[in-house]
This record gives sequence, C-alpha cells and structure tokens, in this order.
Amino acid sequence: MLESLKKAVWEANMELPKYGLVTFTWGNVSGIDRESGLVVIKPSGVPYEEMRPEHMVVVDLDGNVVEGNLRPSSDTPTHVVLYKAFPTIGGVVHTHSPWATSWSQAGRSLPALGTTHGDYFYGEVPCTRAMTEAEIQGAYELETGNVIVETFEKGGIDPAQVPSVFVFSHAPFCWGKDPHNAVHNAVVLEECAKMAVHTYALNPNTQPMDQNLLDRHYLRKHGANAYYGQK
Amino acid sequence: MLESLKKAVWEANMELPKYGLVTFTWGNVSGIDRESGLVVIKPSGVPYEEMRPEHMVVVDLDGNVVEGNLRPSSDTPTHVVLYKAFPTIGGVVHTHSPWATSWSQAGRSLPALGTTHGDYFYGEVPCTRAMTEAEIQGAYELETGNVIVETFEKGGIDPAQVPSVFVFSHAPFCWGKDPHNAVHNAVVLEECAKMAVHTYALNPNTQPMDQNLLDRHYLRKHGANAYYGQK
Amino acid sequence: MLESLKKAVWEANMELPKYGLVTFTWGNVSGIDRESGLVVIKPSGVPYEEMRPEHMVVVDLDGNVVEGNLRPSSDTPTHVVLYKAFPTIGGVVHTHSPWATSWSQAGRSLPALGTTHGDYFYGEVPCTRAMTEAEIQGAYELETGNVIVETFEKGGIDPAQVPSVFVFSHAPFCWGKDPHNAVHNAVVLEECAKMAVHTYALNPNTQPMDQNLLDRHYLRKHGANAYYGQK
Amino acid sequence: MLESLKKAVWEANMELPKYGLVTFTWGNVSGIDRESGLVVIKPSGVPYEEMRPEHMVVVDLDGNVVEGNLRPSSDTPTHVVLYKAFPTIGGVVHTHSPWATSWSQAGRSLPALGTTHGDYFYGEVPCTRAMTEAEIQGAYELETGNVIVETFEKGGIDPAQVPSVFVFSHAPFCWGKDPHNAVHNAVVLEECAKMAVHTYALNPNTQPMDQNLLDRHYLRKHGANAYYGQK
Repeated sequence: MLESLKKAVWEANMELPKYGLVTFTWGNVSGIDRESGLVVIKPSGVPYEEMRPEHMVVVDLDGNVVEGNLRPSSDTPTHVVLYKAFPTIGGVVHTHSPWATSWSQAGRSLPALGTTHGDYFYGEVPCTRAMTEAEIQGAYELETGNVIVETFEKGGIDPAQVPSVFVFSHAPFCWGKDPHNAVHNAVVLEECAKMAVHTYALNPNTQPMDQNLLDRHYLRKHGANAYYGQK
Repeated sequence: MLESLKKAVWEANMELPKYGLVTFTWGNVSGIDRESGLVVIKPSGVPYEEMRPEHMVVVDLDGNVVEGNLRPSSDTPTHVVLYKAFPTIGGVVHTHSPWATSWSQAGRSLPALGTTHGDYFYGEVPCTRAMTEAEIQGAYELETGNVIVETFEKGGIDPAQVPSVFVFSHAPFCWGKDPHNAVHNAVVLEECAKMAVHTYALNPNTQPMDQNLLDRHYLRKHGANAYYGQK
Repeated sequence: MLESLKKAVWEANMELPKYGLVTFTWGNVSGIDRESGLVVIKPSGVPYEEMRPEHMVVVDLDGNVVEGNLRPSSDTPTHVVLYKAFPTIGGVVHTHSPWATSWSQAGRSLPALGTTHGDYFYGEVPCTRAMTEAEIQGAYELETGNVIVETFEKGGIDPAQVPSVFVFSHAPFCWGKDPHNAVHNAVVLEECAKMAVHTYALNPNTQPMDQNLLDRHYLRKHGANAYYGQK
Repeated sequence: MLESLKKAVWEANMELPKYGLVTFTWGNVSGIDRESGLVVIKPSGVPYEEMRPEHMVVVDLDGNVVEGNLRPSSDTPTHVVLYKAFPTIGGVVHTHSPWATSWSQAGRSLPALGTTHGDYFYGEVPCTRAMTEAEIQGAYELETGNVIVETFEKGGIDPAQVPSVFVFSHAPFCWGKDPHNAVHNAVVLEECAKMAVHTYALNPNTQPMDQNLLDRHYLRKHGANAYYGQK
C-alpha cells in the first residue's frame, strides 16, 4: 500500500540527520496521497538508524491508523490538520532544529532579510500566538495545527508561498509539494534563521529587504516566469 | 564482576565523543548496581580511543576501589554523593560540554524556554551557589556533590524530574535511570543550553514557557499517562 | 574546447561544499580564458554530487552560450560584468556562505580587524549600496555586477587588493587570479566575517587594525617583496 | 638529524587540522632540542595534506637554517625568541584559530572564568599591547616575540603556568613542554575562548572564578601534589 510514498517519506526522514536538523528522534516527516486522502508518517520514537520504509505508518485524514504495526508520530494530528487546511501541500516536516527553534522560543517572526530567504519564502515566516490553556489541555497536537492555520488565515499568508511557521515556545513546522521538498524548506529555514541571528547582532536595526528585490528573487525561482535551474 | 554494567558504562562513556560533548578526557560516566551498592566508573585521564570495558573501575559507596588497576575518575566522590542522595538514579555523567559550561560560568539557571526543554526537564535547570573556601580546600569533589544535593533540596526540586545541574564556575552534571540515559540527558541539556543563548540574543525578555505547556510536554513523555514513543 | 579551464572551474565548484560554503546549489564559480575572452561557468541548479567537468557551460563576454547543453548559472551576467571591469582577475565565485551573507544582510562593510584579514585583503571589504527599483526590475543580474563595480570605483578600491564584496541584502562575490584562488578568497572572507562577529561581541568599540600592521602583513604575502611560502 | 623531534613536530602540526585549529596553512608548530639548542619547525606555506616529517626545517637559536631544503615558517623568529626567553618550554604553536583570534582582535585578555580554564591556565591569558610602528617596520616577527616576552615579564606571569598569549590584532601563540603539549594547550585555549564569549553574552558582569577554586583545579593537575590521571 502506497509503497512509493512510504519510500519517499522514509527517505525524507533520513535526510533530517543528514542535514543536521535533528537530535535523537526529534523530527518527523509525512507525505500525503491526495487521491486516496491517506497520509504516510514516521512512527513515534524510533531511532533513525533503525528506521526502514516498512516502519512508516498510514493514517487517514481523521488520524486513524489504516496500516502499520507501530504508533504514528505523536505529532500526527498536527500534520493532518495542515493537509486538510492547505490543499496544495504534499509533505510536512517538524523538527527542533536549533536555530529555528530559537526563533520559536523567542516568539519572533523572521522577516525576509536577504535573497537567501527571498528565494524560498515570499515574505516573513510567522510565529504563532501562544496557545491557550484550553488548547493545551484539550486535543493539544490537533490544536497546534489549528493555531498554525489561524496564523496564516489571519495574516493573509499563502502557505504555498511561505512554507514554514514557528510554533511559539515550541519549534518549526515546514511543508512543501512533497516530503523531500518539505525537508528542503526546513534546511533553508534553519540557514536563514541562523544568518538572521548574526545579522541582528551586527545591526540591530536591520530592515526587511526591499520588496522589489524580494519579488525578483522569489519569482525568478517560482511561478510561470521562473528562470532558475534547468527547464 | 558487574560485567554488563561495565560494558554499559564503557558504552556510555564512548557516547561522549560521539555526541561532541567532550574534548580530550573532559568527561566521565558512571553507573550503579543498586543491589550490591557498587559503582562502576571511568578511569581518570585515559583517552577515549584507548578505553576498553575492562578499564572501568569498581568502587563502593564510600568511594573505595573494589576492583580495577587504574585510578577512578577524580570526580568519583561527586558521583558517589549523588547516588547516595538521589536513590532513583542509575547513572551519572559529568562533562565540560561548551554550551552548558557557559551557563555554569555565567552562574545562571536555565529556565524552560520551550518544549525541547520541557520534554526532558520539568522546570528550570538550576545553577549551584559558589562553593566556600572551606569546601574547596576540604574534600572538594565530595563537597561538589554536597552543593548539588543542597541545590535540589533547598529548591524543592525532584532530581528525577530535573536530571541536570550547573555547578557554578565549573560545568554540568547530569544523571538518569542508567548510564546511557544520563548521557542522553546531557545531550539534551547541551542542545537546550545552546538554543537558550540564541533565544536570549533574539529576545532578552523571553519568559519561561507557559506552565500548562510544560505540564503537557513533560507528562506526555514521562509518567503514567505518557503517550510518546512505542509502548 | 577549453578542457583544462573546464576542469579547473569544476574543481573549484567542488571545493565549495568541501569548505562548507554552500547549502544545496547556492554557489557558482567561473573562470575566464583571457586570450579568447570566453568564460566557463557552472550550470544552473545542478547538485554538486552530480556535477561533472563536461557540464560546465562556455559563454562569451556578452553572456551568450557558446558551448554546453545546460543553462549557465543565473548569475552569469554578474560574473561577465566583473571580468570586463576587472581585467586582472581570472576567476569569480558567488556563494551564500552564512557569515559573509550575514554581513551583506546587515549592510555593513568589514574592516580589517586583524592579520588574518590583512594577509588577503588590503583594507575593508565593502558592502554595496542598495540597488534601485529600476536596477532590480531591469537586467537584474547584470546590474548586480554594475553596482559592485561602482562600489570599487567610487571607493577607489583596487579589486586586485580587495578581492571580495558584500552585495547589500544578498551575499558575497569573491574573485582571484584563477577559479581556485577565487574560492580560496571566499574561504578567507567567511573566516574573517565569522571572527569579526565575535570580535565585535567582545568589544563593540574594536578599531580597524593599525595601518602599518596591515601594510606589513599584506605585503609580506603579496607584491614584489613577498617572503611568505616557498619561492 | 633530530629524526625523532622532526617526527614529533610533524605529528603536532598534523594535529592542527585534526582539532579544527587551522584553515589552509595558517598555523605552525615547532619543537626544541635543548641539548643542541636546535629548533625544528614547519616549512612556510606547505599544505598539511602534503607535509611529511622530512620537510621539517632545522634552525639554530639565531634563526639560521641548519638543515632542510624548504624555507622555515615566516614566524620562525617569534618561536626562537620564545625558546630563548622561556627556558622551560619545549614546543611552540601559532594558529589563527577563530575563537582565540577573536580575542586577539578585540584586544582583550581572557580571565579564568571556570575550571576548564583553571585546569590548564593558572590565571588570565594576557593580550599583548599594540606593536609600535618601529617594531612593525623593523624585524617584525622577532619583535612579535619580544612583545610577548614583555607581556609576561611586566605582568609577572610565569609562562610555564600560563602557556598562551593573544598577540594584539593578530592571533594566539601557545607553548608547552613539547610540541604535542603545545598543541594540546592551543586546543584548550580555543575551547575556553569560545565558552567565554558565550559566558559574557549570558552575563556581561561575569567575574573571574574564585582564587581558591583556581588553585584547587590548577594544582590538582599540575605540580607535586597532582592527583588527576594515572600515576
């Protein structure tokens, strides 16, 4: 069942230690098969060294396990909410990568400070509001998804153009057109988060980049008139 | 004698360079066999590349060597004090890992700033008071243990829930249910200590995380109702 | 055609991941054959692991592709402008290396703070002005080259003596006598950019190094009376 | 001639890239044979990958080459001054390791902030004064040695107890009882320099460690009553 998606999700999970985004088991990647509405996700708490494609768990969009002997990641309800609210995305990743997590802990959104950011994120990467006591004590992981969706809706942000968020006091979630692309965006976010810390250390009054420059860089890699890479 | 504990202690010591926690021989891990009351610990000043399970030294809870041709770690009296005062712990580790040591040198306790911390430490990781001249000139390593114990007793902190401490002007000690778990906690502490430095750089007024969120995260991984990982 | 230059350009590109200067495909190196006026450059968006010497693209000094099946780097027009304006250089490299990019984002020039800098850069590495809306919306990559050239002309800086620049809100460009030397300078710039961040953290009032010391260090490695290295 | 010292000096030089202390050829280690008064030192500008024991150059205490086909390190006169002024040392190392160099550039001495420092350096690691125009334009490398010696003499610092110095606007020099020990001290200095930057970021008012604690740590590893390591 969904063998190629399982392999893709497993490969994307294995990219997390490769790119230095995870310590121990602190990360999870999922992918969705939009036709069947089924999500493939990493099992909970299994070390990366031991993880195999067949360990991936299949859940439906209500979060019920459809196939797999292991428990899915405890963050599965968050992933599911994102797939339902953001219909253009095909992969989701959550990590505690250190630089992005520092932004989450500081409760700050990350403005576009340069073209590295602008090549991937069409504007500021937002930080969510703090979750309420009711949300935390209720269906916490599902509510985490809801507060992310609220952040994009209230901010008028297109999740296809800003494929990452900082969850306040927690860590980043990123997404993309497929599991591999979601991890790619997580690597970029970590790099931008790191450089922005140093940028503000050098110049606390750094302003967001010029909107024309952001347009130019984002649109030369994305959209109908993109001219970066091979055709 | 205690062959499997010796192997576990040796393996846990070998994890220190693997996780980047030690330079040269600046670290030591021990484990206790609660039944016999015997502690197995790394020898003093032996390079990790040359260390073998049979080099581990066995001491009793008065710190006397019971087996082994090498001198035990000079920090052995500190370990022994912790085993006597904290009856639930099975492994102790001391390192000079750079980020945690920076907190020790700054004399600051590390508040819970996010869920990475809250998944492992149920509240602030404390920094001890400065040791007195009498303590330093007396049985220094034993007194180091005493000042750690005092910190937890006076602060009303459960060492099972906050398995780490910063010794003022020195470096961290961590512990856990066994030697491997103690090292695991040392890795987490280093990661949290690093992220907290960056968090405060981004937002000097960062507040500790919401208590409800801390409860949720700590308790989903620990205690009777834990639901993280495989059963 | 230009087989040895292609090999040199490919090798210099492969040094970028080796020295930790690039994430994904965020970098490109070119070299020029001054006799024919032809430039060899990395193709756009090809992963380093898959890149081979025969993938290198040959363009003329108007930026037209003369040989090669792949599209040249999207930054090719910038490289071409530099080769035309700076007749002594033989290689150009562009990266988003994190420390140098942080200076670009902060919009700060990097003064010579010590001999590491002075051994390679004869004075401050400048940051360009912001580009105008017209420049960004016009022939953007070519205008990027123009603003670099303007920075050196207006500042009276010799590009042979200061072989690097920070493009504002973007990232560094570096150059040298050949592709390998350009990458060498990019490594040095990254190292100096990193150390300068820490230097200012330790002493916000750090002054540029003494001019006599700068003269001594730069000239012992460069120029007629150099006495560093083997003859 | 001096084959075992050549091998020791070569090995100590090879430790520089192993411990991450050098970029390219930015470092050099020497050793002295006190009986003959001959110094063995790394050749100038030779890449570490290509360096062999037989490339080491032998010079006398006037800095004249006694054996070897390659030019000695351009810093040779500095090494020689240190060997003449500090009769207890057997090895000298110079690097531009990034954290220690940042202290040199900031012009700050490094106080003993914790036991990691105190285990190796019996007090503050000093930064030299700026060199004068005459010193820089004269026998610069020799004068670099002189200003180091002056720093220790005027400060009443025992070079055997504080085996490192920051040369202002330049980088560190370290030494030890032999070439390997000198490099060992350079690794420790880099680690302490790094942690001190983070310590001051966390607490700008951090005070030097208690003198009693410094005595205890330094003396448990050094001197007649040392009890660290194996006998």
